[in-house]
Amino acid sequence: MKFYEMKKLLLMSALLLSAVSLNAQTSPAYEEAPNPVATNPALWSKVKNAQVSWGSTDIRYKKEEPAPIQGIQKSISLTAWKGEKVSAQLVVWTPEVLEDLTVIVSDLTSGNSQISKDRIRTGFVRYVMTDELNKDGQGACGYRNSADFDSTLVADPIDHLTPAITLPAQTSQGSWLSIRIPQEASAGRYTGTITVKANGQVLSELKLNVQVKNRTLPAPTEWAFHLDLWQNPYAVARYHQVEPFSQAHFDLMRPLMKLYADAGGKVITTSIMHKPWNGQTYDPFESMVTWLKKADGSWYFDYTVFDKWVEFMMSVGVKKEIACYSMVPWRLSFQYLDQASNSFKFLEAKPGEAAYEEFWMTMLKSFAAHLKEKGWFDITHIAMDERPMKDMLETLKVIRKADKDFKVSLAGTYHEELVGELDDYCITIAEKFPAETIRARREAGKVTTYYTCCTEPRPNTFTFSEPAEAEWLGWHSAKENLDGYLRWALNSWVKNPLQDSRFTAWAAGDTYLIYPDARTSIRMERLTEGAQAFEKVRILRQEFEQKGNRSALKSIDKVLQLFDEMKLGEIPAAEAVNKAKKVINQF
Amino acid sequence: MKFYEMKKLLLMSALLLSAVSLNAQTSPAYEEAPNPVATNPALWSKVKNAQVSWGSTDIRYKKEEPAPIQGIQKSISLTAWKGEKVSAQLVVWTPEVLEDLTVIVSDLTSGNSQISKDRIRTGFVRYVMTDELNKDGQGACGYRNSADFDSTLVADPIDHLTPAITLPAQTSQGSWLSIRIPQEASAGRYTGTITVKANGQVLSELKLNVQVKNRTLPAPTEWAFHLDLWQNPYAVARYHQVEPFSQAHFDLMRPLMKLYADAGGKVITTSIMHKPWNGQTYDPFESMVTWLKKADGSWYFDYTVFDKWVEFMMSVGVKKEIACYSMVPWRLSFQYLDQASNSFKFLEAKPGEAAYEEFWMTMLKSFAAHLKEKGWFDITHIAMDERPMKDMLETLKVIRKADKDFKVSLAGTYHEELVGELDDYCITIAEKFPAETIRARREAGKVTTYYTCCTEPRPNTFTFSEPAEAEWLGWHSAKENLDGYLRWALNSWVKNPLQDSRFTAWAAGDTYLIYPDARTSIRMERLTEGAQAFEKVRILRQEFEQKGNRSALKSIDKVLQLFDEMKLGEIPAAEAVNKAKKVINQF
Repeated sequence: MKFYEMKKLLLMSALLLSAVSLNAQTSPAYEEAPNPVATNPALWSKVKNAQVSWGSTDIRYKKEEPAPIQGIQKSISLTAWKGEKVSAQLVVWTPEVLEDLTVIVSDLTSGNSQISKDRIRTGFVRYVMTDELNKDGQGACGYRNSADFDSTLVADPIDHLTPAITLPAQTSQGSWLSIRIPQEASAGRYTGTITVKANGQVLSELKLNVQVKNRTLPAPTEWAFHLDLWQNPYAVARYHQVEPFSQAHFDLMRPLMKLYADAGGKVITTSIMHKPWNGQTYDPFESMVTWLKKADGSWYFDYTVFDKWVEFMMSVGVKKEIACYSMVPWRLSFQYLDQASNSFKFLEAKPGEAAYEEFWMTMLKSFAAHLKEKGWFDITHIAMDERPMKDMLETLKVIRKADKDFKVSLAGTYHEELVGELDDYCITIAEKFPAETIRARREAGKVTTYYTCCTEPRPNTFTFSEPAEAEWLGWHSAKENLDGYLRWALNSWVKNPLQDSRFTAWAAGDTYLIYPDARTSIRMERLTEGAQAFEKVRILRQEFEQKGNRSALKSIDKVLQLFDEMKLGEIPAAEAVNKAKKVINQF
Repeated sequence: MKFYEMKKLLLMSALLLSAVSLNAQTSPAYEEAPNPVATNPALWSKVKNAQVSWGSTDIRYKKEEPAPIQGIQKSISLTAWKGEKVSAQLVVWTPEVLEDLTVIVSDLTSGNSQISKDRIRTGFVRYVMTDELNKDGQGACGYRNSADFDSTLVADPIDHLTPAITLPAQTSQGSWLSIRIPQEASAGRYTGTITVKANGQVLSELKLNVQVKNRTLPAPTEWAFHLDLWQNPYAVARYHQVEPFSQAHFDLMRPLMKLYADAGGKVITTSIMHKPWNGQTYDPFESMVTWLKKADGSWYFDYTVFDKWVEFMMSVGVKKEIACYSMVPWRLSFQYLDQASNSFKFLEAKPGEAAYEEFWMTMLKSFAAHLKEKGWFDITHIAMDERPMKDMLETLKVIRKADKDFKVSLAGTYHEELVGELDDYCITIAEKFPAETIRARREAGKVTTYYTCCTEPRPNTFTFSEPAEAEWLGWHSAKENLDGYLRWALNSWVKNPLQDSRFTAWAAGDTYLIYPDARTSIRMERLTEGAQAFEKVRILRQEFEQKGNRSALKSIDKVLQLFDEMKLGEIPAAEAVNKAKKVINQF
């Protein structure tokens, strides 16, 4: 018994062609793309043997160059709250082949207290192909041909699945450590040892110190930070060649989506119609709702996929909001199964047209009833991307007519006339809500956030972006008194995301932050740290406001001023973040 | 608001290209294809002016030649039962252009009795492109390129929609008269006048005499003759560019399917899955059942199209049997909508495999419940074409397991082991059921019939077949003591059925017997007369058996012996039919 896609032959050919690389893709161990940059032996002439040092989480170490570290650093000190996840990077560089490089962590101890080594995850920082900003340096939007851009390997995926790695001669290799301080840990100065082995012997032992403060960060589900990274289940099904929404699919998605939940992900991305973004991603979003127009003119809707997906995401810990895309898709073309002809058809209709209203009214009424039955109506948002104002207003009319209590969200531009309509309103970093608007919305239980996309050269989360820019995003949200941050793509993978983060549009890495088999990335880890920073700031401010500690509040406000997107030229993200961390961690 | 097919651009291009011919197709008046045969002026040299004569319904008059009639026949005499439909053909041939040729009928009178002219329908016998048998003359099967065959215009469509026609110089034109004797008519000799006009004046007046016997043929719905001509609603939707199973579609199909009902059509052709014959016709059969596999593994079936189609056909008068194709399609590939991927997928599984059984058991149980609710279970047959015996037996197992009372039919080969299993069993003309088997089946309420297809050079119903062969089919059924006749294609139209009856497979006309806009054909009219003959023979036999009129029975049996397919070389169909009609009509 075999299942075939409609485009069976095409698919089979594609499978045959990519069989070798697919095997590589789905196995935990995988090959990186060849390095397009030749190694410069002169740079390695002074490196006599393998070196191991603590490095910086702000740096993507180059594969083909010795790490730019002057004095080997054997010890590192981090500061953390209970419940916080902190990170460090060690780096190994070697003139000769290093067989079976491994990184072994010990428990961390502080007197009689202990943080188990199970709370420390190590992962090799792997190399993936990237490109660069548009030639004018002003952004990264538009369709692009990779050949037109400088393409290099860049350190980004954090590969916790490969226990040992062999380094060719004249290679650098980072290893990322992630320490999740238990919420029930005792405060104190913890110490542990990181043993780096290769060729069957110990290369180096590094000291890891963590100052655990007597403050507690709540679990990510409790964070106020409203993080909305759009999830794409279809990319996972395609990449792993599993049936969408099968047990195998969910099994693959659980650890992957846990990365989002652990970053404080609050919103479940759902596609209630076919191709809400007109297939802009490598794997287009399919409709999670079955639209069947019966031959008698009536409609049959089925929400089995929607329900399974939402329930799954909730079980992973993402449960604050369900965002439903889209009544105003990028192409106003609405697919449905036409029973009479037993084929898919498309209604082409615009908001404001009778056909549009009829089509959506029927669905929204059915949908509202279903959501109420599931108890999800109050957290479900009919979600829009920026569209012409006329279309948005007409769409709102239909939503309100179907059910006046439907929540609505928009990721777009600031429009004063929409402020009262939108329960979740996200605008670009370059625009600003009036401060009073943000406060009023928060009091009314409405969410107000900002987003970045291909527009911003920085801060951004391309695979070549400075690592600290990902953390900067959360700090900026704190600075602007916003509720959180949105990015349109958590995992809209390209064809071979582990090997090559470039795509046919936008700069490399624009379409995903995490990698197959739930490998995280420098970007995702730093972005998560930004969410933690936001929470810490929020908690401290609340405390200091209650206590009337004006000087503390002032020092926080002052350091937050570093997170001004207009000043990124003068104050690089890493500088701002490191300064701000020092201030925050002093409390 | 516009509806688009998936292959929108492709379709739009096709529409643009065929816009002119489409207009021609859908208008009641239409252009015939150009005559590939040049007119021979020598044949016309002796024809001084337009001629009008009664001709024969056994002849397809050639367009480019004078009708081969020696003495003009001004009067014709037909014999009919009350309730019977009888036909005649008049022919006009002209050396000069004849403008606005019309045929006007009068009422028929017999003393004080009258048969209204409303009961007489006239139609010009139009010309359509045809080809010929395979080169060996042994049949017409196989794919073919029209260019390899002699292609000519042949008289076949009967065009009742064109009231007046202009004949070019040196042209012949038939006009078909169809007289439906009312069941309540008085017996007697009726007379009427047929006025043929052209160029604004009367060309000729012909006499029509009908001897109405004091016997009554029941209405077609009451006929025992089991006529099974497979209907293709999809061809009608495509040809007229209407949404399948829309009101417009049904409006177009009502008069068309009435031709089938009036011929005594007993079986409703339904397709319960996608492409039961793997798309062998120009318009493939779609699934009238919606097969939706939900993401939770359960199935949703919807019968709206099936119900609408069956109810429609019943309303037209076809209601004895519902034939459902096919659990053993020509390609063992079963389409369904896969909800999870929101796409069509195919199960490829064979009878005997677990996946096949699971797939069909689920559907058949749902289907049986639905049919019982509709009150149709007892007339519904799971219908098969001939397949390997192993497959048919495995299929039967699944059917019986789903519901032991499901009726089953087969159009195929004679297998003794299937006789008891099949409620409707149809075999090719070349095979014979044992006489006792036919009788036993009839007593058990089971139907036993025969079929012809591309295999037989004659008798057949290609557009070039002798007209009488179509009538011969019903007589043959009477001879063999069978219950009726099956042909696989009532209206599986080719691209432009009015202009060109050739197809990419089989001889021209194989795929349809009737024409767009409910135009009948010489073939369909003669086939209907064969059904009537079968009924008349049946009624007479019954009467003579009751009365013990052995000599009458003997004369009927004797004349039926003419309808032996092995003797068609010696006794052409027209000869057999005309002899037999004389015998039957003497009673």
